[in-house]
Amino acid sequence: MPRSGFGLWKIPQDKTADTVVEAVRAGYRHFDSAADYGNEVQTGDGIARAVSEGLVSREELWITSKLWNTFHAPEHVEEACRKSLGDLGLDFLDLYLIHFPIALEYVPISTRYPPEWVHEPETDGAGMKLAKVPLHQTWAAMETLVDKGLVKNIGVCNYNSGLLHDLMTYSRIRPAMLQIESHPYLTQERLIRLAGDYGVDVTAFSPLGAQSYFELNMAAEGDSLLGAAPVMVAASAHCKTPAQVLLRWGIQRGTAIIPKTTKPERMRENLDIDDFELSRVEMAAISSLNQDRRFNDPGAFTEAAFNTFHPIYD
Amino acid sequence: MPRSGFGLWKIPQDKTADTVVEAVRAGYRHFDSAADYGNEVQTGDGIARAVSEGLVSREELWITSKLWNTFHAPEHVEEACRKSLGDLGLDFLDLYLIHFPIALEYVPISTRYPPEWVHEPETDGAGMKLAKVPLHQTWAAMETLVDKGLVKNIGVCNYNSGLLHDLMTYSRIRPAMLQIESHPYLTQERLIRLAGDYGVDVTAFSPLGAQSYFELNMAAEGDSLLGAAPVMVAASAHCKTPAQVLLRWGIQRGTAIIPKTTKPERMRENLDIDDFELSRVEMAAISSLNQDRRFNDPGAFTEAAFNTFHPIYD
Repeated sequence: MPRSGFGLWKIPQDKTADTVVEAVRAGYRHFDSAADYGNEVQTGDGIARAVSEGLVSREELWITSKLWNTFHAPEHVEEACRKSLGDLGLDFLDLYLIHFPIALEYVPISTRYPPEWVHEPETDGAGMKLAKVPLHQTWAAMETLVDKGLVKNIGVCNYNSGLLHDLMTYSRIRPAMLQIESHPYLTQERLIRLAGDYGVDVTAFSPLGAQSYFELNMAAEGDSLLGAAPVMVAASAHCKTPAQVLLRWGIQRGTAIIPKTTKPERMRENLDIDDFELSRVEMAAISSLNQDRRFNDPGAFTEAAFNTFHPIYD
Repeated sequence: MPRSGFGLWKIPQDKTADTVVEAVRAGYRHFDSAADYGNEVQTGDGIARAVSEGLVSREELWITSKLWNTFHAPEHVEEACRKSLGDLGLDFLDLYLIHFPIALEYVPISTRYPPEWVHEPETDGAGMKLAKVPLHQTWAAMETLVDKGLVKNIGVCNYNSGLLHDLMTYSRIRPAMLQIESHPYLTQERLIRLAGDYGVDVTAFSPLGAQSYFELNMAAEGDSLLGAAPVMVAASAHCKTPAQVLLRWGIQRGTAIIPKTTKPERMRENLDIDDFELSRVEMAAISSLNQDRRFNDPGAFTEAAFNTFHPIYD
């Protein structure tokens, strides 16, 4: 899997196809999608256009998608996967991930898609509805997708070390990937090291920290990492942008990264991080910014938005 | 279960029986034991003596014990429970808890008991050996203990919210208790609230914070909560000791507490917390000391002691 991927979260539907084509043109070969992002049809359009224009072949691409929480029951996992495959216009996924370690009540695709967090959004205060589906049953169904050739690799997102230990006891097909939020304000050193000990690769989402969360009102101006002193000092020393330093930091510590942008110049900037190396001192100075600050926290988010409380990290 | 319990961790074997009798005399009716504490035989001696001296009846006591990590495999759970019952001299436990959400390779009782963290302590650097036993299988075996009448209630220790969500999906018999480290430096507000939403009671171990960890070199003098300003202010206002304020804080936020001591006067002090009430302002001031500081962290502990790295909370 190419270490620098392109994240599709929050790319508006009407810009997604063009953005994917532009990203392929900029050099991206790894795309991080999910049913929940609501733009898989348009992502598929972009992939098809890039392939038909001869920019890239399917074999050169790495496409990740994610199983949404409402499809955890074993009888719904393949349905969800085939829906993503159909929307993306693909025969197989390179990687399919359990999006969150929490099972929500099934919502038929014909009723609402993507189903999001709340069971009946039209009803005021209907909230989330948990489903009694153990993670080991969902994982077994994910393994069946590999057996059937629908996906090449399977993995998980947003698992903590306790859940990862448990997963490693019952997995027949080992998880290839753990995708977690990580940036210098949330370094997750021990979890990343544990995954490494288990031979599980790690992808860091939100590698630029707060940047993705301003528009959602889930971060404030002062939360930005771009102006943090050790980031700016390293940027100046290497004649790179602060964003490039943050992404390089992510790569050098062994994680894959999946920044998003709709701007072609930013796409190229985010990929242009192979011609410099942060020193051990620079790496350590940036890592020391850690404050265990999580921006993507559905427990807090769903409480604020839907008055339901389901923390998963605490 | 009486909210104020007596914790038996680290009570030396040669003092345990006397300590239990003294604690019963001081008024304790709830004892928190574990195979791993290495003093269940002596605890049993103390219980037997307290009963034979007419201080208390078995029915008036609440006895908790815990399944050690090396007995997670379904075929070993009953063996471990019967061993604790035999050592304690009891027909049943009021509560039996999974001690840690991590399975270690089996060590026969005849080989070494309690088995502790490391598989072959006599071999230098042998380290921990994980066992591939899913938590859902261990839980099913715990449920069988209830079916057989060996234990009245079952629960878990050291689970985080992700593991608790998963447990609630597969439990036939619901967990009665979550036991976690909690004190004003580690308030665990969201985890405690989640447990409450699930109808799971919470016991806070190490309710005095660093006090249990000085002798293990796992805390420094400056980590003590006894001199923290809001604790001292409340102690002064209510003519109580800082320790009593900390324990009262634990009770008022709805948790059970299990402090330990070998000193009779301290036993009485720790129980004498029903005649005052902390105000909302005092409660909030003490809670605001939170710094998510965990003293009991086997991932860090086993790394320092055994050069093995198995974090469970991150």
